[in-house]
Amino acid sequence: MKHPTKLTIVNDPIYGFITIPGPLIYNLIEHRYSQRLRRISQMGMSYLVYPGAHHTRFHHALGALHLMGRAVSVLRKKGVSISTEEEEALNIAILLHDIGHGPFSHAMEHSIVEGVSHEQISLFFMEALNKEYDGQLSLAIKLFKNQYHRNFFHQLISSQLDMDRMDYLKRDSFYTGVAEGAISSDRLIAMLNVKDDTLVVEEKGIYSVEKFIVARRLMYWQVYLHKTGLVAEQLLVKLLSRAKELTRNGEILPGSGPLVYFLNRDIDSDSFNEETLEIFSSLDDHDIISAMKQWMVHSDFVLKNISKMLIDRQLLKIKLQNEPFSEEKMQKKIEKLQKKYDISTHEATYFVFRGHISNQAYSMEKDTINLLTTQGKIVDVATASDQLNLKALAEEVTKYYMCYPKSDY
Amino acid sequence: MKHPTKLTIVNDPIYGFITIPGPLIYNLIEHRYSQRLRRISQMGMSYLVYPGAHHTRFHHALGALHLMGRAVSVLRKKGVSISTEEEEALNIAILLHDIGHGPFSHAMEHSIVEGVSHEQISLFFMEALNKEYDGQLSLAIKLFKNQYHRNFFHQLISSQLDMDRMDYLKRDSFYTGVAEGAISSDRLIAMLNVKDDTLVVEEKGIYSVEKFIVARRLMYWQVYLHKTGLVAEQLLVKLLSRAKELTRNGEILPGSGPLVYFLNRDIDSDSFNEETLEIFSSLDDHDIISAMKQWMVHSDFVLKNISKMLIDRQLLKIKLQNEPFSEEKMQKKIEKLQKKYDISTHEATYFVFRGHISNQAYSMEKDTINLLTTQGKIVDVATASDQLNLKALAEEVTKYYMCYPKSDY
Amino acid sequence: MKHPTKLTIVNDPIYGFITIPGPLIYNLIEHRYSQRLRRISQMGMSYLVYPGAHHTRFHHALGALHLMGRAVSVLRKKGVSISTEEEEALNIAILLHDIGHGPFSHAMEHSIVEGVSHEQISLFFMEALNKEYDGQLSLAIKLFKNQYHRNFFHQLISSQLDMDRMDYLKRDSFYTGVAEGAISSDRLIAMLNVKDDTLVVEEKGIYSVEKFIVARRLMYWQVYLHKTGLVAEQLLVKLLSRAKELTRNGEILPGSGPLVYFLNRDIDSDSFNEETLEIFSSLDDHDIISAMKQWMVHSDFVLKNISKMLIDRQLLKIKLQNEPFSEEKMQKKIEKLQKKYDISTHEATYFVFRGHISNQAYSMEKDTINLLTTQGKIVDVATASDQLNLKALAEEVTKYYMCYPKSDY
Amino acid sequence: MKHPTKLTIVNDPIYGFITIPGPLIYNLIEHRYSQRLRRISQMGMSYLVYPGAHHTRFHHALGALHLMGRAVSVLRKKGVSISTEEEEALNIAILLHDIGHGPFSHAMEHSIVEGVSHEQISLFFMEALNKEYDGQLSLAIKLFKNQYHRNFFHQLISSQLDMDRMDYLKRDSFYTGVAEGAISSDRLIAMLNVKDDTLVVEEKGIYSVEKFIVARRLMYWQVYLHKTGLVAEQLLVKLLSRAKELTRNGEILPGSGPLVYFLNRDIDSDSFNEETLEIFSSLDDHDIISAMKQWMVHSDFVLKNISKMLIDRQLLKIKLQNEPFSEEKMQKKIEKLQKKYDISTHEATYFVFRGHISNQAYSMEKDTINLLTTQGKIVDVATASDQLNLKALAEEVTKYYMCYPKSDY
Repeated sequence: MKHPTKLTIVNDPIYGFITIPGPLIYNLIEHRYSQRLRRISQMGMSYLVYPGAHHTRFHHALGALHLMGRAVSVLRKKGVSISTEEEEALNIAILLHDIGHGPFSHAMEHSIVEGVSHEQISLFFMEALNKEYDGQLSLAIKLFKNQYHRNFFHQLISSQLDMDRMDYLKRDSFYTGVAEGAISSDRLIAMLNVKDDTLVVEEKGIYSVEKFIVARRLMYWQVYLHKTGLVAEQLLVKLLSRAKELTRNGEILPGSGPLVYFLNRDIDSDSFNEETLEIFSSLDDHDIISAMKQWMVHSDFVLKNISKMLIDRQLLKIKLQNEPFSEEKMQKKIEKLQKKYDISTHEATYFVFRGHISNQAYSMEKDTINLLTTQGKIVDVATASDQLNLKALAEEVTKYYMCYPKSDY
Repeated sequence: MKHPTKLTIVNDPIYGFITIPGPLIYNLIEHRYSQRLRRISQMGMSYLVYPGAHHTRFHHALGALHLMGRAVSVLRKKGVSISTEEEEALNIAILLHDIGHGPFSHAMEHSIVEGVSHEQISLFFMEALNKEYDGQLSLAIKLFKNQYHRNFFHQLISSQLDMDRMDYLKRDSFYTGVAEGAISSDRLIAMLNVKDDTLVVEEKGIYSVEKFIVARRLMYWQVYLHKTGLVAEQLLVKLLSRAKELTRNGEILPGSGPLVYFLNRDIDSDSFNEETLEIFSSLDDHDIISAMKQWMVHSDFVLKNISKMLIDRQLLKIKLQNEPFSEEKMQKKIEKLQKKYDISTHEATYFVFRGHISNQAYSMEKDTINLLTTQGKIVDVATASDQLNLKALAEEVTKYYMCYPKSDY
Repeated sequence: MKHPTKLTIVNDPIYGFITIPGPLIYNLIEHRYSQRLRRISQMGMSYLVYPGAHHTRFHHALGALHLMGRAVSVLRKKGVSISTEEEEALNIAILLHDIGHGPFSHAMEHSIVEGVSHEQISLFFMEALNKEYDGQLSLAIKLFKNQYHRNFFHQLISSQLDMDRMDYLKRDSFYTGVAEGAISSDRLIAMLNVKDDTLVVEEKGIYSVEKFIVARRLMYWQVYLHKTGLVAEQLLVKLLSRAKELTRNGEILPGSGPLVYFLNRDIDSDSFNEETLEIFSSLDDHDIISAMKQWMVHSDFVLKNISKMLIDRQLLKIKLQNEPFSEEKMQKKIEKLQKKYDISTHEATYFVFRGHISNQAYSMEKDTINLLTTQGKIVDVATASDQLNLKALAEEVTKYYMCYPKSDY
Repeated sequence: MKHPTKLTIVNDPIYGFITIPGPLIYNLIEHRYSQRLRRISQMGMSYLVYPGAHHTRFHHALGALHLMGRAVSVLRKKGVSISTEEEEALNIAILLHDIGHGPFSHAMEHSIVEGVSHEQISLFFMEALNKEYDGQLSLAIKLFKNQYHRNFFHQLISSQLDMDRMDYLKRDSFYTGVAEGAISSDRLIAMLNVKDDTLVVEEKGIYSVEKFIVARRLMYWQVYLHKTGLVAEQLLVKLLSRAKELTRNGEILPGSGPLVYFLNRDIDSDSFNEETLEIFSSLDDHDIISAMKQWMVHSDFVLKNISKMLIDRQLLKIKLQNEPFSEEKMQKKIEKLQKKYDISTHEATYFVFRGHISNQAYSMEKDTINLLTTQGKIVDVATASDQLNLKALAEEVTKYYMCYPKSDY
């Protein structure tokens, strides 16, 4: 193990400086598994809408690590005992919580590997690293899996008010320039406390929590589910699906070794083994973009055109409404496209499709945000008096979309 | 009239630079009536809670002027015709909309002059200035009084989404350091449009509006109605009330000429004449603070002690709850105080009192914020689908408080 | 002594949150001596130029306290041992370093009390507080007076790179909106270290130091010595001087008790006793502004007109150049004024005067900023190779000004 | 030509919103030539040092366009006449000024195509676009080539105070988080004027210019020439050079079509034809990264190891000093490496090498920054009195470096 000799400090446009706490964390960051995250876009292809949104999973991991440090420091000042080992485990768990993300983060989560969530893959990575570092990650893994008796540790890593969310909301709002999505991580963390092994927010922080939830909601509808970003994401999924389809039909597509490996296989959580992990670990956004650039001149109509659309940013048109789109509307668009290009109905459905998106700004069902009242009681923030609007925000909102080629296509 | 020879630019920490549009506006800003606003704190005594909150009505007036310039520019780009005269009138009206504020802004609105709102006094000032500037403010006054046929002009000056609110929310959140109250005036203004002479927000701006309302709500409960700020404000009101009481009883209190003038008189909107305006125009925060500093050594128990409390920031204790405080609780505290200091019940009520505060984040009754749907219809933002929480925010929330001396007093 | 029961946090627009470290500091902040600083403008009358610059000495004291906390934390992480007692002493010393400032800070430093610097008065206050707090400030006083054997402690409080300067440059640039004056206190502090009991900056911080010095230089010429601000400051000094002159001649001027006390006496550092301190402690900006507002209608031509100029912001004209202004130019302006208003030559010199301002961005003579080279040597930052421009910045620059009434006066 | 129907607005974290001025500019941005810039990192591989620095040439082009709009608006307000055609030409020229950048911007400027600067390639692109858009770019090209009679237009596009520099300094400082490099583009632009067809800064802007130059100097030494970034850049250049060498020796390397095309050819400005441009237009960062990822398993020692170093961020060690490194030191390191790995001296020099970097913060030789004195004279900002330090900044500073493998390699 390398021992960095001095205080390692990383510049961060958001927090100013991020200090790396100790040699193990330092080495985990230096590990090629972590370095790979430098090549994974945090927000998928959202940069096609927000040209500033090129930040990476790597930077987000450092940011979440930084916030964890602040949270530990605040909780300790309030008398919550956290041992050095527990602190390191928290740091490791938050640093690596997203290490299992594949190319373009969520966008392709179920395209490369079917039915294996990025959290599961993160766990595979942690276990591999635990072997390499002689069991030093064991406690971190326990926390990550929520198997530690002090429940609030897991809540700091994964809940509706965890360090992950705080950093990504802040970071995504910062890099997109959607200032309205900004949240005050400083204040939220300053309001944290622990009561009965449960993470709570002190009562006077209620408006900050409300603001946090509304900011999150705004980020969802304005940024994460932005119409144009949604089209790009759907096209990306369809592109991979087409590539798998062609491969399954015996076609050999150009592409990097790791990408071809995954195109050729249907891997699920059972068949995901050490070899899979190793190859997965060399896959990143560049494999996808480079493949697209090659596929732009491929003979397959679908593969070629989706690739061109994504590379040249000449995307499909999208409509959004509160009710589902009718089958007839779909058929009309499909026929129009078939008439123009002499393609099969199946091929046309790669360019004409519908779906829905939904978001629940706050969930009252699990991992609720708990308020510590001045009387010392723990209540769900949404049931605290005066928070009618939080209850309203717990309603799930669904919207329907339909995509089809622009008229000049 | 003075003609500034070059582009006049004012530094502003919030907007960077504020350009003064033309000589009439320049001269109105230079006028001693406007200069007085440099000595009126925008947020009353909130600086006792938020040490950064020393910004003034003067700065707010410049900020609102700046935003008006942006709004006019955006609306024109969208094809709304606004003549040069109308633009100047908008600028004048927004610049002077708060010129009638007395010492400590809202805090003492009904203490100096009874039953005359600051808007009425603003109008008196505008009319005086209109005389001095040969009728050049006539159109501005019309807009201010909502007597102009193009309704949206008044909405830009006074409504639930006017330039006044946008600036004060942004400015107050900036100077207090309550970052969560920040609103994106840039984006809100970019979303403005005019339809059927009504100010509207384009549909895609709905989340920005929601965020704006929640930010406003947060500012109310966390800043404007902050417990400590509330105590200070109430004490200030009680101090003036005591001073009037003593004066009415024949006592001659030390104090500046203008302050003594108003202590000696009960002025309402009918008796508010030119002389009143002239004397009012030389009254500012300094008259009050200086009086307090003199009253700290006055023989009257109430006057002396409230003055000391405010100057040395040794305020009363305050409790806040969702139900009214009982008469018994009050009586107990009053008796305790009387026992300790040998004062009358009446005197004790200056230090033991209760009341309530309430806030409605959004009103569906008047000056609603209107959304222009993509279909070209105008709807109240709170009735737009998916905005259950806005309806919730239209509920009025009331809290009850009780103040009494700290135990060591 | 009061014991605050929970973590006391203050909102600050610049640093986010400032945590008050412990009960003694808390009580010193609550003390009326400190509270007085809420009524002392940090930048004198600069708000007449920069409308945002209403921040106070109180806020600056808290900011410097915050930076001290950061510095202590960084130094400790680098292995510099600092005991709890030393830390508290550092905190006290920096918190109170400016407590001796009188009304309008520097502007009137030598007008109220002759020949007693604000540092001396700060020391008087500290000693009074030390008595009140049973010697708990003794070490802080030692540090403040540079009588402690660990020299770098004093350097953190007072040197060319102390916490005082860092905060005021950052704060003044923030509140004026002169963004170019912003310095990166975070980075500068992260680069601090201690070598041979001397405060040093690590070599890689050299560009940050350079930037700091240039920012300071810019703040001097653009803000602190801004033409209009300079006129206002000079007028303020002249006003006090006239008031003293009239008082000396037997005139009884209206004004607050404390102000009249100082107008009536010539106090120097020998005659500054406990009584003086007590009365000084109740003097602030309000005494001056209120006096001016009364003097606006005084019969003395000088007193009346300077007061009006400052209150209504109708200041003198000022010219700035690299050579001194000639006696003839002065005479002409004086004669013109005398002709117009029938006043004595002496009276005219209150409105027509000249002087000079000078600034040295960096001094190589005392309290130099020391660089710790990677070889472990300590060198003056200005002599480090590649820093020709720092040497250039060590040159003193002088400019000459002349003030006289505007033509329409 | 597509006509965007509404005001097109792009979110930008730095300026808030960037409005796209008109359909031609809109279409040029939508063109695949411009879209390619989304895949070109603005700061090469600096993200290996500053994890936030993933911003692109595309974003920079939009930013510079935004600043040009501000400059035009300020100059017009000051009476400088600028026609609609001239404005559009300025916009086009600044938008496209960097369109000729290849992968990783400057880092590989002379590796892909020898002896053809990115400015020349930008011109080739502009000419191709001019053909496509029927001559609508002719005036823009004239401005870009400095062949227009109104000289200040070219200065806005390319000089020591052009919109290009302002945006990249601001943007690079923002994304790296090196806040000290921030410049006040707003203020600098507000100070611009035109005198005798020359772009000038008004005298009172002198400190802003000084600050700008110092910020630029700091960015050079702290960011652009950062040790680690320098190693990465040199390794990238060496990698391409090795790839060309191997190709020249008959080896067929894996890589994308466009990359292989350029590896196979020595193209100079004479042989750069339409075909070259077309293939160049499909080359971006992804071609390089993807090639490296393939080369990590190549049999060639040099190719394999440099690729691994860059992908896994296990870079060489670097020393920096003020004098050149001796031949002996080099030889020792080379021998040590040869002994360890059995490679030729030539191969070893890919891992052990030296060089120098130099920077001149301000040049008094060409494109000087001109100050307009209050007397109406134009002077070089460095010769204006009181600017000794600017003269010092005009000195060129050179540093020497040497790179070699870390001890554990």
